[in-house]
Amino acid sequence: MTAHPPIMPVILSGGSGTRLWPLSTPECPKQFLPLAGPDSMFSATLARVEQADGFSAPLVVCGTGHVAHVERDCATEQRQNVRVLVEPAARNTAPAIALAALAASSPDTPMLVMPSDHVMRDPAALLAGVAAALPAVRDGALATFGIAPAHAETGYGYIAMGDALDSNGAVHRVSRFIEKPNQAHAKKMLADGGYFWNAGIFLMRADAYLNALDSHAPAIADAARLAMARSDANARMIHPDATTFLTSPSVSIDYAVMEKAANVVVAPVDPGWSDVGGWAALHALSDRDDDNNAIEGDAIVINARGNLIRSSPGIRVAAVGVDDLVIIATGTDILIIPRDRAQEVKAIVERI
Amino acid sequence: MTAHPPIMPVILSGGSGTRLWPLSTPECPKQFLPLAGPDSMFSATLARVEQADGFSAPLVVCGTGHVAHVERDCATEQRQNVRVLVEPAARNTAPAIALAALAASSPDTPMLVMPSDHVMRDPAALLAGVAAALPAVRDGALATFGIAPAHAETGYGYIAMGDALDSNGAVHRVSRFIEKPNQAHAKKMLADGGYFWNAGIFLMRADAYLNALDSHAPAIADAARLAMARSDANARMIHPDATTFLTSPSVSIDYAVMEKAANVVVAPVDPGWSDVGGWAALHALSDRDDDNNAIEGDAIVINARGNLIRSSPGIRVAAVGVDDLVIIATGTDILIIPRDRAQEVKAIVERI
Repeated sequence: MTAHPPIMPVILSGGSGTRLWPLSTPECPKQFLPLAGPDSMFSATLARVEQADGFSAPLVVCGTGHVAHVERDCATEQRQNVRVLVEPAARNTAPAIALAALAASSPDTPMLVMPSDHVMRDPAALLAGVAAALPAVRDGALATFGIAPAHAETGYGYIAMGDALDSNGAVHRVSRFIEKPNQAHAKKMLADGGYFWNAGIFLMRADAYLNALDSHAPAIADAARLAMARSDANARMIHPDATTFLTSPSVSIDYAVMEKAANVVVAPVDPGWSDVGGWAALHALSDRDDDNNAIEGDAIVINARGNLIRSSPGIRVAAVGVDDLVIIATGTDILIIPRDRAQEVKAIVERI
Repeated sequence: MTAHPPIMPVILSGGSGTRLWPLSTPECPKQFLPLAGPDSMFSATLARVEQADGFSAPLVVCGTGHVAHVERDCATEQRQNVRVLVEPAARNTAPAIALAALAASSPDTPMLVMPSDHVMRDPAALLAGVAAALPAVRDGALATFGIAPAHAETGYGYIAMGDALDSNGAVHRVSRFIEKPNQAHAKKMLADGGYFWNAGIFLMRADAYLNALDSHAPAIADAARLAMARSDANARMIHPDATTFLTSPSVSIDYAVMEKAANVVVAPVDPGWSDVGGWAALHALSDRDDDNNAIEGDAIVINARGNLIRSSPGIRVAAVGVDDLVIIATGTDILIIPRDRAQEVKAIVERI
């Protein structure tokens, strides 16, 4: 048996979402917040692969403005070997993963690409999916991980599952990718079965990904190769050349590669996944009291039900007689919005 | 015509209410907050008599913990002659006014006693009532000022109006004082007419008040006289003797004197009065936008109606899709409560 290179975790930390404003901000996006437990979601993403066999040191891909957050979460002894690839600018996922592929120690290194701002209650379920997909990936397949849909969500892309690769059915060919559907289409897929949420988690060999890029999005591959050839790097930090990288098209891996490549497979997994896509999602995944209140921080709650309340240190929230609200208090901003309208936080951020 | 001494305004600043928590606190009660305009209500109370003829320098009666607030609001040139009588401890209004009476420059000085935590939109209306009541007061009457009830309020005492003193009907004898009524009684008084809210504003000669105290509450008069005989004073500050003053019973002027004295008169006035007795009252008297929102401070309000929003400097409130809430944000405390339940703020203060 040939010795295989270990899997390199690639932690994508490029997000700068505003759906969890005012906690998340461009300066401190949600992956760096302890939204679902004592550690940041970024830190929890690293932790997923730290205890597991078969993985090498992770590579973090982040923006220049977030290096300090990454360094803080990687300050432990155990994380001294984490490498940090600093994107000169956000160019979406396809270019970011291309940089990561070029930083792999060997072309045949499998990369487990994971967004850093998702919650997984059961990381072992993902790792089981990774193990199931690994043989096909070693053979050159591009693997995705599909989450069984819990409801007719219109905010995610879907993966239509094709034939099983083998008799145990753990890995299937992808029949096609479906972009964010409308409500009717989402309901039909939920009813029909065989469709999975595309969670943006991938397993693929560095060379397989770069080859696919060369075929389907060569400008991205070229910009990444040149930026890495001109990079400034030490054992910890990699700084690709900014001028070169800025010439790259800004495209997602789904659009640039996955929807076009032939050898794409999907492993259905159920790791208790949430992308914490908004305040309502955070309420759903949080611990709640008998009155369905999810409370973190100093709060006095009287005759109040179904609220999500978060107060930063030094701030005390007193909520009396209010139901189903999201109440978020930082030292400078306070958000009050009904839980079922929490997606309208975008209107506020736009106003700001 | 004999030369009469001018009226001495006596500004009572003993309140430490918590109905406007978290803005008002024991350290900074509501009279020192700019709740209805750019100045504090205490400052606005002083301003009411500063432009008027016939008044001497005011005397402020406040607690030891509030001297700094008083000094801040009296730091202007115009207020250099304001005197400050520092109560060694809160003993309710009858003893406080006794101290003030003993600080008058002559026994026949009329005192206009005013709480410092009320709003008056039309101070001239009060001053007209003062002018109307003054002749009777010079003759020894104890005058109150009655506010025509706007609704069947159960939170105030009432004054039953008796016969008019003269043909123009500006001043009447008081037939009796009614303590805080129940709802049915309040409705009946509103329907019957001839009843007025007791706003705690009084006009009376210093000696007339002390004589009435001697008759009806001699222990208060004695304690006040001894405390003032042993006081420590300069041109600005008067510190009555604490040990002596602490022996005084703690009783309101209404209970100790007004309900018992024979020569009590009432002048009905309509000065656009509010005691700002809670957040709902503040909403009612505040400027409001087209959506009935009363907003002060930095706030982003979208699809929201009927809210009272106050944010302290440096704090921004974003309220989306919420109606009829009270949202108060200081740097450390945030209150969220429905406007029609805002009196329940007491439950929070008790919990704290």
